[in-house]
Amino acid sequence: MATERVEAMSAVSFSKRGRRLAPPEIARLMDLALETPGLLSLAAGFTDTESLPVDSFAEIVRRVTRRDGPPEYLQYGSNQGRSGLREAIAERLAQYDGGTPDAFDPDRAVVTNGSQQALQLASDVLCDAGDIVLVERPTYFVYLDVLRGLGVEPRSIPSDPESGRLDPEAFARMLTEMRDAGDHRRIKALYLISYFSNPASRSPEVDEKEELASVLQEAGLTIPVIEDAAYRELYYESAPAASSILSLEGFAKFPKLYLGTCTKPFATGLKVGYGYCSDEEWLRRILYLKGAHDFGTANLNQAVVEEALVSGAFERHLETIRPIYHRKMRALNEGLVESGLRELGWSWTVPAGGMYLWLRAPGEMETGFDSEFCRTCLEKGVLYVPGELCYGDRPERSFVRLSFGVLSEESLREAAQRFAEAARSLAA
Amino acid sequence: MATERVEAMSAVSFSKRGRRLAPPEIARLMDLALETPGLLSLAAGFTDTESLPVDSFAEIVRRVTRRDGPPEYLQYGSNQGRSGLREAIAERLAQYDGGTPDAFDPDRAVVTNGSQQALQLASDVLCDAGDIVLVERPTYFVYLDVLRGLGVEPRSIPSDPESGRLDPEAFARMLTEMRDAGDHRRIKALYLISYFSNPASRSPEVDEKEELASVLQEAGLTIPVIEDAAYRELYYESAPAASSILSLEGFAKFPKLYLGTCTKPFATGLKVGYGYCSDEEWLRRILYLKGAHDFGTANLNQAVVEEALVSGAFERHLETIRPIYHRKMRALNEGLVESGLRELGWSWTVPAGGMYLWLRAPGEMETGFDSEFCRTCLEKGVLYVPGELCYGDRPERSFVRLSFGVLSEESLREAAQRFAEAARSLAA
Repeated sequence: MATERVEAMSAVSFSKRGRRLAPPEIARLMDLALETPGLLSLAAGFTDTESLPVDSFAEIVRRVTRRDGPPEYLQYGSNQGRSGLREAIAERLAQYDGGTPDAFDPDRAVVTNGSQQALQLASDVLCDAGDIVLVERPTYFVYLDVLRGLGVEPRSIPSDPESGRLDPEAFARMLTEMRDAGDHRRIKALYLISYFSNPASRSPEVDEKEELASVLQEAGLTIPVIEDAAYRELYYESAPAASSILSLEGFAKFPKLYLGTCTKPFATGLKVGYGYCSDEEWLRRILYLKGAHDFGTANLNQAVVEEALVSGAFERHLETIRPIYHRKMRALNEGLVESGLRELGWSWTVPAGGMYLWLRAPGEMETGFDSEFCRTCLEKGVLYVPGELCYGDRPERSFVRLSFGVLSEESLREAAQRFAEAARSLAA
Repeated sequence: MATERVEAMSAVSFSKRGRRLAPPEIARLMDLALETPGLLSLAAGFTDTESLPVDSFAEIVRRVTRRDGPPEYLQYGSNQGRSGLREAIAERLAQYDGGTPDAFDPDRAVVTNGSQQALQLASDVLCDAGDIVLVERPTYFVYLDVLRGLGVEPRSIPSDPESGRLDPEAFARMLTEMRDAGDHRRIKALYLISYFSNPASRSPEVDEKEELASVLQEAGLTIPVIEDAAYRELYYESAPAASSILSLEGFAKFPKLYLGTCTKPFATGLKVGYGYCSDEEWLRRILYLKGAHDFGTANLNQAVVEEALVSGAFERHLETIRPIYHRKMRALNEGLVESGLRELGWSWTVPAGGMYLWLRAPGEMETGFDSEFCRTCLEKGVLYVPGELCYGDRPERSFVRLSFGVLSEESLREAAQRFAEAARSLAA
């Protein structure tokens, strides 16, 4: 309705896609943040500013600009991305998955404007309006915006509401029902966030991933699987044990796209991500579409990230920030615990990596934008992401996502107190 | 046919868009270049590497990294782009169009990954498959790839084949015929390259632009107009006199999108462009789609370009490179003239800016990839872009685009000789 009204005011006739596009859910959060002075935001998914690698970045730029030879880093690059960077990416993937150094082929990688771009392009070449993409419960809410733009229906994979773990029997039943209804032909892909996921900070183990593959394969759905590993490097103490789907036996027959980032845990202002695609034709079409968009990610950014990876500066920076995010997580977590939030019936798992706490409110308490709880939090001066935004269908109403990436430890403790005060005032 | 065969080999079922995507025409050029050792390429649209602003860039990075305050340039930015950069863009537009300093609103600008991204996003929110976009004869061949991906039909605006000037009577007739055939409803936009255009190096004067608006308006087609001004700053001696469509009276009632670049005439490796949109709702939808793709162009690149614009480094660099491109153009032009190409019946206009010569072969001589002339050029060791790639429909077969951005003056003279030798051997 709102869309139709606005369109009438514009002289422009939009495409179906143009008409489907809507303000992203986070726009509302940003509006709320702007309208509320003194607000502490646990909503924004930004990274820690204090620990950004200022010196390391300046040194890398010095090295790159002092190289002999023509200043190719200031010139156009290729559409697919620098070969040296793609080699460094392939080596890291092999290392993470415990493979031999040549287990991954640099020619299967495409460098993108953040992994977000790879996600959008990959979905665009797969999905028509009316198609279905399988997503987790909960899932990355920005991807739900992407799917909405494409006119694609997200359909949630059944899982245990408490642990978030895949429910293989329910999943198999769902696929059978979809087949009976003739809906299975519309299923174009599965989207999986598998390391310290946004928003739930979950990292499914190998057996859970293999079960997923097994249920799909038994249903005859050897569909493209997209694994989003944006937070894989952001563990606090030990690297996640599970291999990516690129290396798991159960996914051998699936077309696979693995998404990573070179800058979320380094310098987000550079915005360099990548996709690694097992299917030649899928990759080719992603590349064609990327060519139409930008002919390749800015060469300078790629040169800087390549130097960071090859010189070890990237790895050293990871070692610096892991304890920082660990401390920030603990500051928020302890703030909530010490404020008595658990005693009020709130529950959550303490994560081993990533940037989010995923909390469940007690009972039937709702946490959406229009809920009493959300209004109370704004009154107390704290903002969060309502969990209900993170569901493709049948949203759970009582979760919240708290980010601890941006605020200082002190502010995180203060925000935790405000949050707990809001919770207490509603429990009273 | 080729597409179907390849798809059968992939386990992936692609979307309509995914299936429409095809290798860009330049892919064939790149293959030819790789297969032919010693080739001098007048095909690539890259910029001059020797004159890239190495010192200026290093100095800007030093200044940006030494600023007081948090290193926000290494942090995520906003989706629309830095306000300081958008202000600098609005000021330049006012200056170019001879307007008052506040004639342009920074909030109507969106910063993109090169102006190419703005072009793709803007077209995507306007056009469904089966729609029509009006284009010049000739037009930017990469945009034809974009339209193909969208399933959109390019339809050429009639023009004088010799001068390239709009033929207003023929254009009006064409629109009447389209109306009679019921096709006019499918016309979603007009795309105009108005300063030292790629490929024809044309810059329509104000009267020609106004005529265009007038014919459209009389036909009842107050459709979105996209003006691509990528080469506007790259004049050799004096700035083009014509205002952009943003400031022309005749276009007052049209929804307008102006495309510019901050890096093509500075450092292409930074890839920062922009769109300036007169229509609020069109801009909004471009922003939604950009959010789904990447949440905003890399903040670092924006910070560098903003500093280059505000500090005057951008303008100083323009003053450095204008005579360089002028000399390069002359080297190629004189090489062709001195090799006797005009006497062989070839004709072209000497441009006053930009990076291209647009040559017409004598008589009915064809210049396509499969032509005898193209084969002869490859034998002689020189490559060009066949003009026939640059037409939305009814391609002219006897034009070629020669770029002088990349090669040195010496190599340009050598390439000119080779080109003329190929021409002579076919004339004999």
